[in-house]
Amino acid sequence: MMIDTPSSAAEILRAQDNILILVHGHPDGDTLGCGYSLCRALISMGKKAAVRCSDEIPKKFDYLSNGIEDLSFDPEFIVSVDVADAALLGKKNKELYGDKVDLSIDHHGSNRIFAKKTLLDDKAAAACEIMLDVIKALGVEITKDIANCIYTGLSTDTGCFRYSNVTPRTMRMGAEMIEAGADNAAINTVMFETKTKTYVALEKLCLAGMETYFDERFALITVTQEMFRLSGSDESECDAIASLPRQIEGVVIGATLREKADGTFKVSMRTHAPADAAAICAEMGGGGHMRAAGCQLDGPLENAKKILIENIKKYFEK
Amino acid sequence: MMIDTPSSAAEILRAQDNILILVHGHPDGDTLGCGYSLCRALISMGKKAAVRCSDEIPKKFDYLSNGIEDLSFDPEFIVSVDVADAALLGKKNKELYGDKVDLSIDHHGSNRIFAKKTLLDDKAAAACEIMLDVIKALGVEITKDIANCIYTGLSTDTGCFRYSNVTPRTMRMGAEMIEAGADNAAINTVMFETKTKTYVALEKLCLAGMETYFDERFALITVTQEMFRLSGSDESECDAIASLPRQIEGVVIGATLREKADGTFKVSMRTHAPADAAAICAEMGGGGHMRAAGCQLDGPLENAKKILIENIKKYFEK
Repeated sequence: MMIDTPSSAAEILRAQDNILILVHGHPDGDTLGCGYSLCRALISMGKKAAVRCSDEIPKKFDYLSNGIEDLSFDPEFIVSVDVADAALLGKKNKELYGDKVDLSIDHHGSNRIFAKKTLLDDKAAAACEIMLDVIKALGVEITKDIANCIYTGLSTDTGCFRYSNVTPRTMRMGAEMIEAGADNAAINTVMFETKTKTYVALEKLCLAGMETYFDERFALITVTQEMFRLSGSDESECDAIASLPRQIEGVVIGATLREKADGTFKVSMRTHAPADAAAICAEMGGGGHMRAAGCQLDGPLENAKKILIENIKKYFEK
Repeated sequence: MMIDTPSSAAEILRAQDNILILVHGHPDGDTLGCGYSLCRALISMGKKAAVRCSDEIPKKFDYLSNGIEDLSFDPEFIVSVDVADAALLGKKNKELYGDKVDLSIDHHGSNRIFAKKTLLDDKAAAACEIMLDVIKALGVEITKDIANCIYTGLSTDTGCFRYSNVTPRTMRMGAEMIEAGADNAAINTVMFETKTKTYVALEKLCLAGMETYFDERFALITVTQEMFRLSGSDESECDAIASLPRQIEGVVIGATLREKADGTFKVSMRTHAPADAAAICAEMGGGGHMRAAGCQLDGPLENAKKILIENIKKYFEK
């Protein structure tokens, strides 16, 4: 069943207690910001609430949960936040709660409507936009801690208010959270200005080996298992690497070719208009969006690279 | 004479015609956004107005002036925007107009009050915040073109709403400009997601040669004239390089040591709390702010590096 308004979601939550909040696996700032802001709001109303994640929560997000008492209780009501599909809860929580989610609060147009009730707004740049309205409808004061949670979701899901998903509402909610005491500058320093040593080492290797083709309109970074070993980095740090080739002036198509443990290769493609990443990757059995898509290719490296370059060539010859 | 409100500045402008608008040398998004938004507003009021800069305006800012007719007239009134001191007008405009500026609209606390009248708000993250209020007070409609100008200033002077200078006002004005049609995502792509080929080449050389000292709490990048030659880059692209060492997890003090054409070295230091960049650089005859400071050192490289490292060592031993 779809719920129409944040107020209706708030009404449902008001009637419940012993509430378990589930975030998605490999958690990011938006799902955690949603989860901990809701948890703080519910606890301030005298309810028992807790956030659970299938995966470990990166240390940089510790401030979101700081000071929340870890309550133990038998869950009576289960809420998922920023989760488009039960599978995305991650292995552990999917098994435990995949078919038991009472309320899903989400902003993904691709939401599979897996929960009993769903509050969905795919115009929201961050699920935290929806959550702020829910918390306001609960009548809870927006404390500094809640503001930090909501601001984190707004900022991290928009590249710090940079991307095309940002709306006037996103900006105004950012303003409101700063007024409520959010440590906006400190949060942004951690989220956007800090690189791990292992990432820096990997980036150095990647940039050193970057190749360009077709009058420098195509830039390619190869990431091998050997480079993970040399840098101490791993696949979890490759998202930022994938965006590097397209940043170069004149590059229309940027791609990374990442060797997986089994010797196959994952292509991550990022394009500028008019190049259609989804269409090019579809030719290689993959898919995605216009500006960001991907596919899998068999090794060895020479084979994967050859197929990729042939397909890029076909695009430029069109 | 200081002017209290944007309305007073608007009243002064309303009484004038043939208005020359001066931006600062080595122009950035804020000074140009101010200049061209005011120019567009004045022209829409039926006045003659033009923007002048001592230096060449980088091509990426072309959209700010697109469609503005280049009017020729004898200037009767001179306005400077985002200019803290006549010297910052750049050589040409300082000589022509340095002592003739009628109205200065600025947000630098360090403004030397060189103009006949000054509208100053050092709480504004961008001079464009002040300019938007002036243009509104002129009663001019905020067109898409004006919105693009103002948004550019807001975004570029705050690292895309990332830095500590951002206030709720900055965010709300951003919201308003998006509503007025600003191409926010496209502007941010050009300003923050695009690296020149020469910059990428320089960055690669810099990262490859980066050194760390004192348990990786100090990271040092050396930029030599040879590296400029190899990459095709130059000093104008070094601002972004200076911020790289401090971005690394665990680094408290980051510095770049940049060889100048005369063989001396410019130190740019960026720190995290509690390291005081200004104090450390003062020990070497320089100065600046707590988190960003600089100084000059004599060559050769070995000499400059030795002095720099000795002073960092002194700091860590304290």
